[in-house]
Amino acid sequence: MIRIRVINGPNLNLLGTREPEIYGSLSLQDIQRRLEEEAKEQGIVLDFYQSNHEGDIVDKIQDALSAGFDGIIINPGAFTHYSYAIRDAISAVKLPAIEVHLSNIHAREEFRSKSVVAPACIGQICGLGADGYSLALLALHKKLRRS
Amino acid sequence: MIRIRVINGPNLNLLGTREPEIYGSLSLQDIQRRLEEEAKEQGIVLDFYQSNHEGDIVDKIQDALSAGFDGIIINPGAFTHYSYAIRDAISAVKLPAIEVHLSNIHAREEFRSKSVVAPACIGQICGLGADGYSLALLALHKKLRRS
Amino acid sequence: MIRIRVINGPNLNLLGTREPEIYGSLSLQDIQRRLEEEAKEQGIVLDFYQSNHEGDIVDKIQDALSAGFDGIIINPGAFTHYSYAIRDAISAVKLPAIEVHLSNIHAREEFRSKSVVAPACIGQICGLGADGYSLALLALHKKLRRS
Amino acid sequence: MIRIRVINGPNLNLLGTREPEIYGSLSLQDIQRRLEEEAKEQGIVLDFYQSNHEGDIVDKIQDALSAGFDGIIINPGAFTHYSYAIRDAISAVKLPAIEVHLSNIHAREEFRSKSVVAPACIGQICGLGADGYSLALLALHKKLRRS
Amino acid sequence: MIRIRVINGPNLNLLGTREPEIYGSLSLQDIQRRLEEEAKEQGIVLDFYQSNHEGDIVDKIQDALSAGFDGIIINPGAFTHYSYAIRDAISAVKLPAIEVHLSNIHAREEFRSKSVVAPACIGQICGLGADGYSLALLALHKKLRRS
Amino acid sequence: MIRIRVINGPNLNLLGTREPEIYGSLSLQDIQRRLEEEAKEQGIVLDFYQSNHEGDIVDKIQDALSAGFDGIIINPGAFTHYSYAIRDAISAVKLPAIEVHLSNIHAREEFRSKSVVAPACIGQICGLGADGYSLALLALHKKLRRS
Amino acid sequence: MIRIRVINGPNLNLLGTREPEIYGSLSLQDIQRRLEEEAKEQGIVLDFYQSNHEGDIVDKIQDALSAGFDGIIINPGAFTHYSYAIRDAISAVKLPAIEVHLSNIHAREEFRSKSVVAPACIGQICGLGADGYSLALLALHKKLRRS
Amino acid sequence: MIRIRVINGPNLNLLGTREPEIYGSLSLQDIQRRLEEEAKEQGIVLDFYQSNHEGDIVDKIQDALSAGFDGIIINPGAFTHYSYAIRDAISAVKLPAIEVHLSNIHAREEFRSKSVVAPACIGQICGLGADGYSLALLALHKKLRRS
Amino acid sequence: MIRIRVINGPNLNLLGTREPEIYGSLSLQDIQRRLEEEAKEQGIVLDFYQSNHEGDIVDKIQDALSAGFDGIIINPGAFTHYSYAIRDAISAVKLPAIEVHLSNIHAREEFRSKSVVAPACIGQICGLGADGYSLALLALHKKLRRS
Amino acid sequence: MIRIRVINGPNLNLLGTREPEIYGSLSLQDIQRRLEEEAKEQGIVLDFYQSNHEGDIVDKIQDALSAGFDGIIINPGAFTHYSYAIRDAISAVKLPAIEVHLSNIHAREEFRSKSVVAPACIGQICGLGADGYSLALLALHKKLRRS
Amino acid sequence: MIRIRVINGPNLNLLGTREPEIYGSLSLQDIQRRLEEEAKEQGIVLDFYQSNHEGDIVDKIQDALSAGFDGIIINPGAFTHYSYAIRDAISAVKLPAIEVHLSNIHAREEFRSKSVVAPACIGQICGLGADGYSLALLALHKKLRRS
Amino acid sequence: MIRIRVINGPNLNLLGTREPEIYGSLSLQDIQRRLEEEAKEQGIVLDFYQSNHEGDIVDKIQDALSAGFDGIIINPGAFTHYSYAIRDAISAVKLPAIEVHLSNIHAREEFRSKSVVAPACIGQICGLGADGYSLALLALHKKLRRS
Repeated sequence: MIRIRVINGPNLNLLGTREPEIYGSLSLQDIQRRLEEEAKEQGIVLDFYQSNHEGDIVDKIQDALSAGFDGIIINPGAFTHYSYAIRDAISAVKLPAIEVHLSNIHAREEFRSKSVVAPACIGQICGLGADGYSLALLALHKKLRRS
Repeated sequence: MIRIRVINGPNLNLLGTREPEIYGSLSLQDIQRRLEEEAKEQGIVLDFYQSNHEGDIVDKIQDALSAGFDGIIINPGAFTHYSYAIRDAISAVKLPAIEVHLSNIHAREEFRSKSVVAPACIGQICGLGADGYSLALLALHKKLRRS
Repeated sequence: MIRIRVINGPNLNLLGTREPEIYGSLSLQDIQRRLEEEAKEQGIVLDFYQSNHEGDIVDKIQDALSAGFDGIIINPGAFTHYSYAIRDAISAVKLPAIEVHLSNIHAREEFRSKSVVAPACIGQICGLGADGYSLALLALHKKLRRS
Repeated sequence: MIRIRVINGPNLNLLGTREPEIYGSLSLQDIQRRLEEEAKEQGIVLDFYQSNHEGDIVDKIQDALSAGFDGIIINPGAFTHYSYAIRDAISAVKLPAIEVHLSNIHAREEFRSKSVVAPACIGQICGLGADGYSLALLALHKKLRRS
Repeated sequence: MIRIRVINGPNLNLLGTREPEIYGSLSLQDIQRRLEEEAKEQGIVLDFYQSNHEGDIVDKIQDALSAGFDGIIINPGAFTHYSYAIRDAISAVKLPAIEVHLSNIHAREEFRSKSVVAPACIGQICGLGADGYSLALLALHKKLRRS
Repeated sequence: MIRIRVINGPNLNLLGTREPEIYGSLSLQDIQRRLEEEAKEQGIVLDFYQSNHEGDIVDKIQDALSAGFDGIIINPGAFTHYSYAIRDAISAVKLPAIEVHLSNIHAREEFRSKSVVAPACIGQICGLGADGYSLALLALHKKLRRS
Repeated sequence: MIRIRVINGPNLNLLGTREPEIYGSLSLQDIQRRLEEEAKEQGIVLDFYQSNHEGDIVDKIQDALSAGFDGIIINPGAFTHYSYAIRDAISAVKLPAIEVHLSNIHAREEFRSKSVVAPACIGQICGLGADGYSLALLALHKKLRRS
Repeated sequence: MIRIRVINGPNLNLLGTREPEIYGSLSLQDIQRRLEEEAKEQGIVLDFYQSNHEGDIVDKIQDALSAGFDGIIINPGAFTHYSYAIRDAISAVKLPAIEVHLSNIHAREEFRSKSVVAPACIGQICGLGADGYSLALLALHKKLRRS
Repeated sequence: MIRIRVINGPNLNLLGTREPEIYGSLSLQDIQRRLEEEAKEQGIVLDFYQSNHEGDIVDKIQDALSAGFDGIIINPGAFTHYSYAIRDAISAVKLPAIEVHLSNIHAREEFRSKSVVAPACIGQICGLGADGYSLALLALHKKLRRS
Repeated sequence: MIRIRVINGPNLNLLGTREPEIYGSLSLQDIQRRLEEEAKEQGIVLDFYQSNHEGDIVDKIQDALSAGFDGIIINPGAFTHYSYAIRDAISAVKLPAIEVHLSNIHAREEFRSKSVVAPACIGQICGLGADGYSLALLALHKKLRRS
Repeated sequence: MIRIRVINGPNLNLLGTREPEIYGSLSLQDIQRRLEEEAKEQGIVLDFYQSNHEGDIVDKIQDALSAGFDGIIINPGAFTHYSYAIRDAISAVKLPAIEVHLSNIHAREEFRSKSVVAPACIGQICGLGADGYSLALLALHKKLRRS
Repeated sequence: MIRIRVINGPNLNLLGTREPEIYGSLSLQDIQRRLEEEAKEQGIVLDFYQSNHEGDIVDKIQDALSAGFDGIIINPGAFTHYSYAIRDAISAVKLPAIEVHLSNIHAREEFRSKSVVAPACIGQICGLGADGYSLALLALHKKLRRS
């Protein structure tokens, strides 16, 4: 049975209320619920997590390996742009990870188009709103079944 | 009935033979076949196109509007990094477009991590191989059904 | 009754002992005491907070909204220069925030003159020592009474 | 008795009519009147000046010393971003100076976030509208009484 | 009746004698005379001005509004490359302005290709010698008659 | 009899429908018609051309010389910002060329303010909408009659 | 028998007439003739090609592999500085390629000294005029005979 | 008796399993044990600490002063490249600190060669694997005995 | 008889009192007196001028030509770093000019080491205090006698 | 009789043993022998030189003129990237010089793709191994016979 | 028996007298003596060398291999920041090398924090004064005994 | 009796023959002779030196101190732009040094306007041809007599 951990970075707990014209009107709970349903349908065990603390996210990534997870979906939020610690954690655990962004990071402030985390992931999905999580789940599922 | 045009840029016709360690072993025909099947299942009309000519791609994007397409999936290949003409074409037709890359453009040469096309798209998917096309199809489908 | 939260970033707990030629000889407790007095005189409820943890500061900013605060005074310390997470938190809660720095950040190392947090605030006060906090309190007070 | 000169740079004479969504609806005369009242209350002699001429501003800064002023409040307007002459003048007279900006210069065009004048001042206040002048007056007053 | 002010920046009073291989052999008086004739033919009141003083130019731009001018033609000379004060003045008066350069600023020293004034104008004409003024006059005329 | 070729780059065929708030509501056919009339009045033979293909534009520029044209008006569209091939073609044929842009390229995204084509032209007109073409025609006419 | 394709980029068809002080007075036909003679002497089959169209050049590079060519000599002209599509095509076909420039690209405008194509070639020859082609032919010949 | 605190940043707890070709095969416990032995031999009290949390590391640095430590050895891991908070903490406590890196940060990705922490330390040792810690211990010991 | 104009930029009127550790303890009057003596000895007519106004300095440079001066010595003060107007004025009058700085501009803040005026002068002398003026006088004298 | 000096920079004496996967397995003596044979066949007098000392290479270049050499082939090794002294020496003697590199400097570390010497040469050959020397010899020979 | 060569770059012969507040008061002879003693204790043959000549240092590095040395300690002095020749020499001989700096190069002028030599070494020690040499000796000793 | 050493860098031995339009027609011997005469008149002992070897120049600077010289005049030639070794040597000996350039380094290639040596000197003279040496001699003389 495939086990996937979904990690959300800072301020994503405010989804739905926070600048909905950019991030959409779904709350993080809505996304979690939807994703858990989709995971169940695909026979995937899902662990959904959010934190505003960079260190907690690094811990969770490290723990994913020892806790037997097969892959990671991560929306690092603002940490995307400077957390080399998260990048190194993903590189260290060597689990396949997909970076997800709700908004199109290439169509906003200059600094948002650069991800220091993405080079440690296998891929990145952005701009597709909450669907980005579902797509990442599908992609990881396909990849893990193949390997 | 939803109509989606898939546009592939330079050198993607060599897929399967071209640096398979980076781009995978599927040919573009393989991808087309798979995507057409998935489109049929979802009741989507698919138009699949490849060209090494920037101008032809601009033409095809412009034509997508008058020909009644609802959305665009585009893998601009190397044009990703300098074709402001393709970017402007997408902005001009105002069709929802998703940029797809087979490889993780953030984990290669520096110049590949920057897309001048992405700001005109609604989102970008990279690093997930041929699955990226399928995910983009799904995402466009969901988005178009909603709106 | 106006409620204002004052948030202090890393190393500000060392004020008074830390490089007094740059940061002055008042301790953070001295500043807190003075500010609480001034707040009382103006009929403002003040919540004064310091942390070396970026995540805790993001939490406190988010909490400010649900806890009913009307404005934020923030001295992000070194986080000023890289914490896009704090910037996003301030943007997300949409409370008026004023950034305060004890020293003149424009007259020190190059990297200190750039704030990634300030664009999410309504204004910035720097170089006026502990008075900066008092001025920010006054400014927020005036602004909130007007709106 | 404390004497403070307030110097305003180019286009500030248009305040109230000029882009009020950025600079507010008070005219410079309004600000002057308010500031003179506040100065009177605090027993401060105020000299209020505006010019579109860089050289005149340099002259006024130099003159502040010989004319016996104790401090300077300066809103250099667009000169903020390139007038090394004004910066040098402030350094030369060695009077404490506070730079004021009506708008939040960190939330506008890139070039506005950089001040070449600020390193010669003791501090900077921005984004707090006309209140910025009042706060600067208070701050200078406090500082001068202490020293 | 349309009223247009023409403003010329530093060193343009030397036209005809100054580096004629770059700037042509017409004097500024020649250009003024020609332009006044053309204006008369088109029923335009023309005010022609030159100054080596940035402040005077800012004053003249501000004055253009209160003096009832309908548009501005400006050749800022060397101020083109650093006078944010002139840029702000044009933005403030909100009169349509066209920037003119005698020489092709894109074919000379690197620094000349960048204009800090142009973003506040409606357009820019360069490289067409004294004709540039005539064209700008025509363009303003057309634009003002239309609106 | 003076012969002038007018060349339009990618996406200009969409004028009128494409982002009219930026590019105006005239179609390219409207502009062509107007320009042909003006040319006729001035006794100029006009050849009007548009292509989305960089290579075709290079061909047309080269052909201009052998086909006996006396000057070129070119709106390179997005090619403005990267087509050194077009720049070299203009340098090679040594015909006087004027670069035209409908919008003010200095008041949009950063990348649009830089033209790699302009150094090979005699001048540039931008921001004056369709009038830019008429002005360029006039300017070329004047210049050619003089020489 | 060794087969080598020689590909020439935009504006090289104007050789001899185009800025002869930079590019020499030989026409491209002259170079072709000379090179075909030299090829014949060395028992090499030569295919000589020029195009102003990036896409055609990408096609020709791709075709070189299926058409059984052993190596490529390419003078990408202005494409040298931005055509990542050509670079990728060369990388994809994995044929040994030598980049040739008639002029010394290091002694001209800054932008000409940087080649985005060269990293995909085995080497580069510049500044030696038409001899550069002959030398590249010799070099490829030597290399291919050895391997 | 000399007291030295050793602080390890994010992901160093994974040593031995994490990319051993870069970081070596010793675990952090191995390093700790070895270092404690060496410290004992030299009569040094050692406090060994690791955290993935920037705030905890800042706390530990601050605590080092009040807890009576004489010096600090710090391997900030990925925080090396952006944690101005750690830098400021070291500057604030004014304890001699040596920065250690297991790998040669100058022979890896560009971003790793820059340390924002090092300017606040007395020195830096990198590329010497676990020996780096022993050398730093020796160096601090020598320095402290001398002063 | 040789006639030389000496022009001094902003804040140089404060010499002697302004930061004497950088600029020396001589007043500008002292320098003028000394220079006039030296000029007299060499049979040179000297015109000594200071202004804080960029426009006045441009006027004076232009006037130097019509007033029959043979050369210019200029210490542009802070204008050194941004006044392209002064640079253009010197280029326009084509009089030999020498730029003088009292302090070593290469040993101070980064921005001071770059002069935009120097490329229009024949040479530059810096760091030699008031002697710099005397040396410039000598140099101009020698040069003018030779030509 | 044509006389050509071949100059080799630092570390080229280690050829054959030094990183043969980059520089090939021929020793410098092998290259010298081969080149001397080829020179003899072409009736060229060859002087072959290697030094690790920048000053010696500058001396040798200067000496080439007085010693009657007609041209220079130079592989500046690492000096390529910073020796303005060698560049100036070549410019000073005004002998035609060709820069040679064994490896493709455009396909290695970023810093290697920039040559400060090449602008003073007539051309550059890189990436063709030891053949590069032979080609340079041929090219110089052709050029010298022609002139 | 282990043999180690210690190489010192320009101006290190002045140690003790040269800016002792930066480099300490030990002379290079003092350091040599101390290091030779330590080497003797560890049974290491030490060769200690200083030169102001880049070429001599390159020679010495090359010679280290043929002379049978097992490792190199190098303080390249100012060559650290530009001598790609020294870097290449170390890469070529493939001996383990440690770069040593007496001062903390990260806490001085910007240019000193960048080493072009370090990427070719196994590690770098800086800021620990003369102890840096002793530590490098220890580190090399440990490393060589292990391998 | 004052003793001054004059040091000339690479290629200055070619003066008179080397690009006389830039460097003048005097040979270095001419300059030496003239300078020695002037020195004699002023009672100065002069040591005049030229080398193409950076190391020799560093040696000569160091030797200047032990040999009892009171000051240095240095024209570092091309070393100006990269020799941190020469800069450090001048800083180390702490003798007053003046940098001289024959040509106006601000009016040539971009790289020539930056001196890495000048920050260690007391001043710089450029663009005044051979007179620059005489002026430097005078300046040093005046300065040394005063101190």
